[in-house]
Amino acid sequence: MCNKDFMQKAVKLSRDHMEANDGGPFGAIVVKDGEVVAEGYNRVTSTNDPTAHAEVVAIRDACANLNTFSLKGCELYTSCEPCPMCLSAAYWSGVDVIYFSNTRKDAAEIGFSDDFLYEQVSLPLEERSLPIKRIELAEANKVFQDWMVKEDKVLY
Amino acid sequence: MCNKDFMQKAVKLSRDHMEANDGGPFGAIVVKDGEVVAEGYNRVTSTNDPTAHAEVVAIRDACANLNTFSLKGCELYTSCEPCPMCLSAAYWSGVDVIYFSNTRKDAAEIGFSDDFLYEQVSLPLEERSLPIKRIELAEANKVFQDWMVKEDKVLY
Repeated sequence: MCNKDFMQKAVKLSRDHMEANDGGPFGAIVVKDGEVVAEGYNRVTSTNDPTAHAEVVAIRDACANLNTFSLKGCELYTSCEPCPMCLSAAYWSGVDVIYFSNTRKDAAEIGFSDDFLYEQVSLPLEERSLPIKRIELAEANKVFQDWMVKEDKVLY
Repeated sequence: MCNKDFMQKAVKLSRDHMEANDGGPFGAIVVKDGEVVAEGYNRVTSTNDPTAHAEVVAIRDACANLNTFSLKGCELYTSCEPCPMCLSAAYWSGVDVIYFSNTRKDAAEIGFSDDFLYEQVSLPLEERSLPIKRIELAEANKVFQDWMVKEDKVLY
C-alpha cells in the first residue's frame, strides 16, 4: 500500500464514524512497517471525552496494541491537520512522520477551533482567552528536585 | 478550601505517584463548586500511554464522573504548567481557568520537553523537527462539506 492508500483509510474512518454520529468528521491510523497497527476516529460526543480526537485515539490504540509508550518507527495518517493537542501527542509518542489531508483552515471553515488554538498556544499566558494563573508552592518544586535524583525512574 | 489547598492536593498526587513509579512527577485535579470532582497523575510509562499526562487524565476522569464532554464551570489545578497537549485539552474541555505551580522552564530543567514543544507548535510546518506532510484528497474535503450540512450532528 502507498501513502495515498493509507490516507484513504483514515478518510474512510472519518466518513463512517461521522455518519454513525460518533463525533466530529475526523479519522486517523497508525502504520508500522507497512501495516496498519491502530485506528482512531473522533468520539468526543459519543464517549464524553474532549480528548478523544482521532489522532489521540489512534496513538493510544497503537501503544496498547504494540505494548509500548514509544511509537518510534511508526507513521501517523490523519484526515485533517492535527490540532495542537494531537500534534503534541504525536511528538510525545515519538512517531516518525505525520501525514494529513484537510488543513486547519479547512477545519476552521466548518466550525472547529484548531486554527484558533494554534494562535492561543503561541501567546504569552496573560494574553490568552483561557485564564491561566500561577500558584507557586515550594513543595511542587521539591517534587521536581526529587525526580532529578530518583534512581529507579523510567524516562520517556 | 482555598486555591492553595487545591494546589497542594495536585502536588501531593505528583509526589505520591512519582514515588509509586506510575510515571513523571505531575499531578492534577478538577474542581467544581468548591469540590474535587476528578484527579489525575502522570501514568505514561506504567500504562503505555503517551497521552496520559496528569491534566488529560484528570479531564477525562472529570467528564466521566460528571457525564458530560464540557467542563464549563470547572477549574483545573495542575502541579506544573500544562504542555501544549494538556493546554489544548483544557481549551477543548471548556474549563474556566487553569492554576499551575511549576513552570515549563522548571520542567525543562529536569529533562521534560514542554518548553521545546511550545516552540515546535508555533513553527510553520516545514520548520518543525517532526516531519508533517500533506496528502490532499478530495474525499477528505467532501467529508467536511457533508458535516456542514448534516442535520443531526452534535456540536462540541
